[in-house]
Amino acid sequence: MSGTFYGLGVGPGDPELITLKAWRIISHAPVIAYPAANGNESLARKIAAPFIPEDVTELAIPVPMRREREPAQEAYDEAAKLIARHLDDGKDVAFLCEGDPLFYGSFAYLLDRLAGKHPTVIVPGITSITACAAQIGRPLAARNDILKVLPGTLDAERLKQEITGADAVAIMKVGQHFEKIRGVLTELGLAERATIIEKATREDERITRLADVPAGERPYFSTILIYQGSEAW
Amino acid sequence: MSGTFYGLGVGPGDPELITLKAWRIISHAPVIAYPAANGNESLARKIAAPFIPEDVTELAIPVPMRREREPAQEAYDEAAKLIARHLDDGKDVAFLCEGDPLFYGSFAYLLDRLAGKHPTVIVPGITSITACAAQIGRPLAARNDILKVLPGTLDAERLKQEITGADAVAIMKVGQHFEKIRGVLTELGLAERATIIEKATREDERITRLADVPAGERPYFSTILIYQGSEAW
Repeated sequence: MSGTFYGLGVGPGDPELITLKAWRIISHAPVIAYPAANGNESLARKIAAPFIPEDVTELAIPVPMRREREPAQEAYDEAAKLIARHLDDGKDVAFLCEGDPLFYGSFAYLLDRLAGKHPTVIVPGITSITACAAQIGRPLAARNDILKVLPGTLDAERLKQEITGADAVAIMKVGQHFEKIRGVLTELGLAERATIIEKATREDERITRLADVPAGERPYFSTILIYQGSEAW
Repeated sequence: MSGTFYGLGVGPGDPELITLKAWRIISHAPVIAYPAANGNESLARKIAAPFIPEDVTELAIPVPMRREREPAQEAYDEAAKLIARHLDDGKDVAFLCEGDPLFYGSFAYLLDRLAGKHPTVIVPGITSITACAAQIGRPLAARNDILKVLPGTLDAERLKQEITGADAVAIMKVGQHFEKIRGVLTELGLAERATIIEKATREDERITRLADVPAGERPYFSTILIYQGSEAW
């Protein structure tokens, strides 16, 4: 009998933002897997570390970080085979995902390869965007707002078009696209209303008004929130 | 010295989807508050019920459910005063919020009234949209997708305009707007790709393809997800 494949959201960084359900599964799963890009430390593992038992089998899945739209299909094929070997042995495998498994994560690639053949349970996690809103104490969206989540990879024209008319905007994957995004927001008169949150809820979290970020800096692991909804509460 | 005002996301329904942080605060706060619309049972309280100590002071906050854009300002003024009385007594108050406190919740009204005067901590919660994606096992958004979260209250023309060109769409506040939304999605050829999730992660959860919902039914507490991103994983 196959083990169960668990996709567990471990939230944005603070280990206490793991759910009781994910915590219970991490505490009991015989095999814990997580993405480890190019031999770097796995952030998902680091977040869950306080709850990973000592006598567990760990699988660091070498998921290459790629900027292109086309993912490294072969790497996911290999990763799925590695995980399937443990499932076929009747062992449950808990795959740890930063944030939420199905919100801009690589988990979807594994899900597509494993869900049809093995019992699968997905546990949602706290997303970076709700964590960011909590840290700055402003609504992510309210009432009848339209909320748009935009990748920073969009070109300036498309960004401008999407941001115009949205009540609330969260821009993900900022990194090397920072100056382009700041340019668009400045042009739209929104630089003063935009906040950039780096490493939300982690020990080295940093919160800055967009207008105050020094030129040339490229904040990684960061999200920009803009709230244009009504200010009348 | 003032007590701390906590805004705690308790997630979409399954009590195990509460975070360790919210659970810890619920277990220790001397005062637990929650919205109770028009004398109905509080869903937020129901979700957190397994973790609420017996000897705690409970505050059911009469927050009227209103469909209009303009909220019942006086009700929130009263609610804030009620909560402030306990904070001024030096007691921490934990306000329970369905889902996430700052994702389409009424918590923002209380935050606006209390945050300036009392120490405030917000704990993000699992949103209905990530919970829905987990329950149906499909991505909410991936790669460089644009994700739009739309209120069902938008008129048909605007809905059509926003859904066109979005890779991923979550429609909230479906209820009485269901047939209008289904009409738009059918016209756009998306009815077969749309899933409606009612009461996600609760015991009476129901998942239906949009095309299969009987005419005349109005599913409340429901979210519609449409994923138009690439199917090539």
